This record gives sequence, structure tokens and C-alpha cells, in this order.
Amino acid sequence: MYDKIITIGREFGSGGREIGEKLAKKLGVPCYDKEIVEQVAIESGLLKEEIEKKGEYLSASGKMSTIFTLYNLYSNMTKDDIIWHAQVKVINQLAEKGPCVIVGRCADYILRERNDVFNVFIYSDMDKRKERIAKLYPDIAPEKLIKEKDKKRAAYYQHFTEMEWGEARHYDICLNSGALGIDECVKVLSDL
Amino acid sequence: MYDKIITIGREFGSGGREIGEKLAKKLGVPCYDKEIVEQVAIESGLLKEEIEKKGEYLSASGKMSTIFTLYNLYSNMTKDDIIWHAQVKVINQLAEKGPCVIVGRCADYILRERNDVFNVFIYSDMDKRKERIAKLYPDIAPEKLIKEKDKKRAAYYQHFTEMEWGEARHYDICLNSGALGIDECVKVLSDL
Repeated sequence: MYDKIITIGREFGSGGREIGEKLAKKLGVPCYDKEIVEQVAIESGLLKEEIEKKGEYLSASGKMSTIFTLYNLYSNMTKDDIIWHAQVKVINQLAEKGPCVIVGRCADYILRERNDVFNVFIYSDMDKRKERIAKLYPDIAPEKLIKEKDKKRAAYYQHFTEMEWGEARHYDICLNSGALGIDECVKVLSDL
Repeated sequence: MYDKIITIGREFGSGGREIGEKLAKKLGVPCYDKEIVEQVAIESGLLKEEIEKKGEYLSASGKMSTIFTLYNLYSNMTKDDIIWHAQVKVINQLAEKGPCVIVGRCADYILRERNDVFNVFIYSDMDKRKERIAKLYPDIAPEKLIKEKDKKRAAYYQHFTEMEWGEARHYDICLNSGALGIDECVKVLSDL
């Protein structure tokens, strides 16, 4: 396989980010995740915290700060749209830089017209995800958080791509990290 | 991975059967596909041709021969149900015999209570499937046939399993044979 860019879509709690990081390390290429947030902040003029919160989720309300209300008067764009457009620009720029792994953020869709992209989706069964999330966030009811995050990611993906999130047919490979284990997923992907 | 039984669900024209056969050969285990039809014929008393036609598709009409109409009076089962029950029995018996690959026929669902089963789904994009089907059945419009077969398999799967066919979350791994190629799919699976 000669694809240069690997995108990883993932369910919350499936370990997709960890798989992305380990895979990138093994292949000796950068893994973009937090870096995207930083670049989108610079690009959009919004705060990192806000992009982290909204970068994969739609706003519940349309509330905006004064500067964005003014901006909106002229451009008719919501804050979600502004973040989305900055994200499209940043992800395309990162892809241009060379081989890499990009976690989340609809990168599969954003880069759909390139022919050097390999798209992965990582999912897992609820029990394994609950176990993982309970370790990471011990104070929160894991199942509720997982369902909420999945629902929001799915809505965000569908809103901007008009495709269904997690639908196997959009991806080149879909791995159940609960059944295979994180390291086996990394192995399968790096062997490809 | 120590699973003994590999089930392969697949889209029509994705090469799932070929992958199953090559994988079984590589692993030195039997691949059950046509054998299931033969066993189901013995078990149900129906003709092989009929089972081949109905083994993964629901009947459009409820028409039955006299003997099955009589049987139906007592048991309240349709011919589809009779085939299904014979299929469940045969697949469970084959699984008991030892390590194997089973192609199609809702084997993933039928064997769901065993803990030594690894479930694979093979899919591909429409263009690659059309190419494949055009070679196998040169006299038929491939896209129409593919859509028809997919629709019927999905309806059959959903009817008997109450789950969605091809939904990644039911499987341990989903491979796009169009993107990866048949031999690469076999390699990924045998390496696991």
C-alpha cells in the first residue's frame, strides 16, 4: 500500500487516538490531533478551548460573541461554519506537508479528492469502551458520556459531510479495538 | 488471536467468497459455503436449488408445494423458516467439528453465543463490484443485480437476526476489498 496519509475516525472510548499515536510512531510520521486545534485557533481567531469543544461537535445554541455577531452580519456564517472552514484549510495544509496520521475531524471527508489517503474507522463494544472511559474519567458515568459524545460526533459528521458517521462503506478498513486489542490494531495497520 | 471459527459476511461482488476460500486454504481449515447448502437440503428435505435460491434471501411470495402447505398447517412455519432452522442446525454442527471458515448465511449471528468466533465483513465500492460481476455474469446488467442481491441479503439478515446487515459494529473487522485487494485481505486475516 502506498498511501501517504492515514485518517482515523473513531468512536469515543475505542482507543482510536492511542492507535493513531502508536501507529504514527511505528511508521515514523507525525500524528495530528491536538496540533489541528492549535492551527485552527490561529486560522479562525477563536480560542483553543472553544475549538476543542466545538471542533467535532455542533453548537447546541447559536450564541456568539459580539465580534462574531458582527462578522456573521456580513458573512452569514455561524461559529461552527467558521471553525469548519478553518479546519478544512488546516487539514489540507497538513496533508500537503507529507505522510502523516490524522485523528478525527472528518479528515476522511475533507481529503476525499486526494488519491493517497487510507481511511480507518475504530470502534468497540460498549463494555470495553466503558472500561476505558471509567479509567480516564473516573468521576463521570461512562455510558452516558459515551452515548452523548457518539451522538454529537455523528451529528457533526453528518451536518458537514452529508454522509453517515461510522458507516463501514466510507472507510478502507474498520477495526473492532475491543475484540482485537489496541496493539493488534496498530500491527494490522502498520503491516498494510 | 485464538478464535477457531471465522465467519465472513460479504456484499455481492466484493469477492468475500474468494477471500474465504483462500484464507481457509492458507490456514489449512475447511471453508463451508456450498457444503452448507447440501447439508441443509438433507436436513430440510428441500431441493438444493431451492435452498441456494432462498438460503440468503426471503421468498417474495409465500407459495409452497402441497407437502409444505400441509406441514405449514401443523407447524405454522413458512418454507423460509424451515430452511432457516435447518441452516441454524447445520452451521452449529459444522462449528462443532473444529476450526473452519463459514461464508455468509448469517453464521455470525447463529454462532453469537460461542466465544471462539471471529466475524469478518467484506465490502467494496460499486465500481469494483461491477467490474467483478461483469466478468462472472457477462450477460446481466451488473449494477441492477448487485443492488437487488444486496437488498435481498439485507432483508433476509434483518428478518432472522433483527440486526442490520453490514453494520460495522457487529463485526470484529470490516475490509474494503476494492481498496485493499483480495490477496491483501487474505493476508490481513491470516496474520491475525
